[in-house]
Formats: sequence, structure tokens, C-alpha cells
Amino acid sequence: MAAPPLSPGSTVGIMGGGQLGRMLAIAAARLGLKTVVLDPDRAAPASQIAARAIVAGYDDPQGLQALAKAADVITFEFENVPAASVQALLDLGAEVAPGARALAVAQDRLDEKTFLNKVGAATVAFAGASSARAAGEAARKLGAPCLMKIRREGYDGKGQAWIEQAAEAGEAYARLGARPVILEAPADFTRELSVIAARSRSGEIAHFPLSENHHEGGILRRSHAPAEVSTGLVQQAEQIVARILSALDYVGVMGVELFELKDGQLLVNEIAPRVHNSGHWTLDGCEVDQFEQHIRAVAGWPLGPTSALAQTEMVNLIGDDVDDWPKLLADPTARLWLYGKQEARPGRKMGHVNRLKPLEPPAAAASGGTRPRPERKPRS
Amino acid sequence: MAAPPLSPGSTVGIMGGGQLGRMLAIAAARLGLKTVVLDPDRAAPASQIAARAIVAGYDDPQGLQALAKAADVITFEFENVPAASVQALLDLGAEVAPGARALAVAQDRLDEKTFLNKVGAATVAFAGASSARAAGEAARKLGAPCLMKIRREGYDGKGQAWIEQAAEAGEAYARLGARPVILEAPADFTRELSVIAARSRSGEIAHFPLSENHHEGGILRRSHAPAEVSTGLVQQAEQIVARILSALDYVGVMGVELFELKDGQLLVNEIAPRVHNSGHWTLDGCEVDQFEQHIRAVAGWPLGPTSALAQTEMVNLIGDDVDDWPKLLADPTARLWLYGKQEARPGRKMGHVNRLKPLEPPAAAASGGTRPRPERKPRS
Repeated sequence: MAAPPLSPGSTVGIMGGGQLGRMLAIAAARLGLKTVVLDPDRAAPASQIAARAIVAGYDDPQGLQALAKAADVITFEFENVPAASVQALLDLGAEVAPGARALAVAQDRLDEKTFLNKVGAATVAFAGASSARAAGEAARKLGAPCLMKIRREGYDGKGQAWIEQAAEAGEAYARLGARPVILEAPADFTRELSVIAARSRSGEIAHFPLSENHHEGGILRRSHAPAEVSTGLVQQAEQIVARILSALDYVGVMGVELFELKDGQLLVNEIAPRVHNSGHWTLDGCEVDQFEQHIRAVAGWPLGPTSALAQTEMVNLIGDDVDDWPKLLADPTARLWLYGKQEARPGRKMGHVNRLKPLEPPAAAASGGTRPRPERKPRS
Repeated sequence: MAAPPLSPGSTVGIMGGGQLGRMLAIAAARLGLKTVVLDPDRAAPASQIAARAIVAGYDDPQGLQALAKAADVITFEFENVPAASVQALLDLGAEVAPGARALAVAQDRLDEKTFLNKVGAATVAFAGASSARAAGEAARKLGAPCLMKIRREGYDGKGQAWIEQAAEAGEAYARLGARPVILEAPADFTRELSVIAARSRSGEIAHFPLSENHHEGGILRRSHAPAEVSTGLVQQAEQIVARILSALDYVGVMGVELFELKDGQLLVNEIAPRVHNSGHWTLDGCEVDQFEQHIRAVAGWPLGPTSALAQTEMVNLIGDDVDDWPKLLADPTARLWLYGKQEARPGRKMGHVNRLKPLEPPAAAASGGTRPRPERKPRS
């Protein structure tokens, strides 16, 4: 039985206290909700905003118990929450959103692509391997060059190796730690897009306008949205996210990374069962932002409107980039977000900046910000 | 000597933990700052968001000491901070913004109007009285009907009495507690406007587009902005706020309540040396909102742009109004803010809702959102 919607004054629990948790806490605050954050780091960005911080490991039984007791619903700012912890929260009677299945699928790259293909969301060709020999066979079958990734963990380009020739696969397998891997055929894409979508407890689905994303060194550098895309492409993306969200009986915001091929087909690169960096533009450029949308969904509330208010470019401030803050504060075109992290290590996301321009009406229409709509088969 | 601008990661101290403090804390969080809130109520709305809450009276020496130690700059969400507390903070070496003078002027209705007239900001005719007899004389001189208000404290229509005939003044004086009062001639205004303006440490001034305000039972009910006003009226308002802010060497956001007379002249009703309820529309309708603007100013940072992005109507949710939250969440035209207050007492501000419409270009131009500009005589 579904829990009743949260009342104002209720508490949202967040596993993970990074910038995504921080922006979730800010959104919750706007809506009159309290937050409690569980993170092993006492100085975690989100803990500064939360009504309460539980300083504990993600698998700490006492920490999980305290979280389950304090929170009316529990959500996640990252997908690699230990499955056993999610189970422990459920065993404690906690309401958890999104559910264990979405996290499990997103934690394993082989399971993820298998799931995606099963629900009719196309991906690149792929194969799994759990030995050096199997990796070699998979590379031969798939054809080189191809990309080898560890199945679990790894982010921002870590835990990956390009296989130029099938004969190198065994060595690459060893180099990646002799752990189960997935091999992926390269995607001959023209650009990277993403769609941030949400599904409510009652099964209504809404998606934000698509964003076009540019990476540097495996890290998202900038996004602009609404992306210039055809109505057909928006419909294709809409169909993909509806299939994924419904199949997972998903509640919350999900980021779906897409490759656009030359022929206009969309492949799913990966899904993130959480708010997503490529959706930060919504903080200033949309009616409701992705963080409020996620809070609405996990609280059992109706989704908000997702139309773009402005053409928005989001640029991540990575490492030393953040030293530009005085210049950015003085720039009237820049809307600055800083994450409250003390140390600007290389590759660390320290903040981001949104720059707004008036919408060009046709682009706005084509990119399809939507009023939430019920899915065809409502959740029973 | 002015303190250096705050660095990201610094701490802003806030005296007062109500909804204004809460929204200041949210704005600070966006900009990578920490907040520490001093409020006697453990469950104060802002304390749920602040990195640290000091639960103490506004005149508690230990509480003030803790605040001064924790904060890199201290600001206020209400004007009736005891003068001795401000002095204590200054004596402890704290940076305080806005300064003691602005608070002192705003705390005493007679001093306030005297100051306003001195800097060339017109008000209704007024006279002070400190005895029943003097009150009677003042009423005769001013002419009845007139309005008697206690000089200090009182808000939302409390501590006031209408004097229909001069002979009633002595009795009204006793009824209001035989405290020093101000008597004011009635303003024959056509509407109530307000302007939210900010001044930075370096003396740059920016104001938001004017809002038109409607009160019920002495409490602000709704505002809409940008108000439909002529360019001349905007210039008049701009001149008024520039005089007030510069004369006080003010740092931060100020709300200036105005009466528009039939002939188009603006009288100042009162000033609030803080963020102001009639500026809540900026949270969704403006480039930078009044809370971020105040944080920027008190942090020693440059002011942000203040142009309207949308025609916005703000409605306060007072007392039981907040029970409409499910309807408001489901309304795609409503942008909801809830303050995290537990008990919906009559007359208590529980939240507000902003409704946005596309700007009509001429109104936008006339209402004069501005890029910040240096004042003519920069602060030395």
C-alpha cells in the first residue's frame, strides 16, 4: 500500500550529502519540508543545509536506523547506495524512493543495458565478460575498437579502457582489476543529449526540455537547453523515458543520457536514478527545477510544470574554475551556484553557472517542456 | 575601514529565524555560504536551514557572543533588534549590516519620519506626543481625523488608533499604553506601492521594479509586480530610495512603502531595513531575488541584476490559507513557498504563492528593473 502524501513539516531523508543533496535540501526548504542527510563526511555540502546531519557510513546499521526513524521518506543523491542498506531501510519500514530495483539496475552496467533493451530502449551493442579469456572473445565478437568498462562503480570516465585490437582485451581486463566488465561497441553519435524526467507515485510522467551536453576529460563541462531538436526527436525521447520509468515503477527524477545517431535514432547511454548534472540549467531556466520536481515526486505530491522560461547555458565550475567567483558575481548575465566545498581539488565539481537568454519561440515549442500527464496504464 | 568581501564558505549570521531569515539562508546556500541563526525559538523556520542555530534571546550576552564569533558578517531579518545588542556585536568586533543607524531610525516612527523629511523624502504631516495633553494638542494642530501610533514596536496594524475628533486623543493615548506616540495626518492615496532597493558596500544602488500592494486587516494580502507605473513615477521612487540609502550609508536590501497621491506624488509610508514581504515576488519573477541581493550586499559582493522575468502576482498564505497547499501544488500556474511553521495561527504568515505571466514589454520597460549603478558620490 502506498504511503499517504507527506504533509508540510514532514522530513525527507537523503542518502549522500554532496551538491545534489544540497540542492535537494534547498528545494525541500522552499516547500516547507525538513531534511535529514546521511553522509560519512561531517562537512558534506548538504549537511550545512539540512535540519539534521547523520554522520555515518552508508552501510552503518545505527546510521541507517537513525535515518529511518527521522525521515518520512528516504531518497538518494547517488546510485551506488549499497543494496543491503536499501534493504535494511525497507526492513525498518521506511518509505524509499526511487525503489531498490531502479538502484540495482543502475548499479550494474550490464544489467542496465540488458534492462534497457528489454523495455525497447536501444543501446550500443554490448557483451559481458568475467574473465580475461571471455573478454577477448567478447571483443572479437563485438569487433574492435570497443570500450571496456567495469560493470559496477567507476564514474566520470574512471574504470574504463579502449580496446583498439581484440588481442589487447585480456590485458585491459587485468588492468581494470580483473573484475566483471562490459564491452561496448562505439557509438557513432553526432551529439550527446539528455532528458530529465520524473514520475510521480500516481504514475504521472513529466519531462523537461532536452539538453545538449559537452564533456571534457570524461566530466560534463556544459549543457545548453532547450536543445535544438525536432518534434520527432522529442517524441522519441519521451517514449524512451516513459518505457523506462514505467517498467521500474519509478518514483522521482531520473536523468537519461542519450546519443543521437546520424540517422536521428536515439540510443540510451546510461540512466541515473537521481537528479542529474545536465539538469542544473532548470534551477534558473525552468518553471519548476529538477530538485523541486524530485522532492514533489518522492513526497507523493503532483509533479510541477517543466516548461523552459529561458534559453539556458550551464557551465560546471571544476577545480580551480571556482576561483573565478568574483568575476562571475559581477557578471549580470551569470546566475551562480556554489556548493560549499572547502577544497578545490582537480576534477572536483565546485559549482556551476547558468546564463539565460530569451527563448526563441520555435525552439521552445519543439523541445517540449510539458505539463505532467498521466501515463496510459496508471499504476494500480 | 571596510572589511574585505566574504569568500565562499564564509558564514553569515542572521538575527531572527522567521521566514525572512529562512529565505535569506536559502539564498546564502545557493551562493556557497554558511548561515548561523540566532532566535529564542528552537523550532524557528530559519534554524532548520542554517548550518547552526543559536537558541537565545536577542539580548542574551552569551548568545550574541557566540553569534559574533561564528559569523563573518551579521544581518537582521527584523528591525526591532535591541540597540544594545547591535552595540554589543559591534563592541565584539563584528561586521554588522545594515548599520546601527538604519535600525535606530526604523525603530522609532517619529525619528523615521523626521529623518525622511530631512533627506527630502516626503511623508504625511505628523507630530509627536509624550503625554495625553500633548496628544490632544497635536491632534488639534494636525486636524482630525488622524492616526495615532505608538512610536516604537507594533506591526501589522497593532498599536494604532484612529482619532475621529481631537478631543478623543487623550483617551486613545491612554488606551495605547500611555507610551510616546506619533500622530499622522491621513494620506489621501490612490494606491500603495513599494520599492525594494539595495545598496552595496561600495555604494552601488539597484532597485527592483515597483510592486503594487493590497492589505487586508493591516496585513499584506497580495502584491503584483512590475506595477503599472509611468517612467516619471519610477524616477521619483528611484530618487527617494537613493536619498534614503545614501544618507544612511546603508548596506543591504531595504523595503520602502509608498503612497501614490492623486497628483502622482509619492509619499513614504515607512521603511523596513531588511528584506520585505512585498518583495517575495522576486523569488520567481526576477533575475536575482531580494534575498540573494541582500546576501550579496552584506557579503561585500556586487549587486545582481533586478529585471523582471515575468509579470508576477504574490499572494500571502495567512493562517488557514495554508490548508490549500494540496490544491496549490497541483496548480501548474502556482509557485509555492512554505515556511515550515508548525501551527497555523490566525494572522500568521505561513507561506506565499507566486503566479507568473509573460511580461508585457512596455510595462517591463516603464517599471524600471535596473542593472546596478554607482551612485554619484561614491562612498569614500
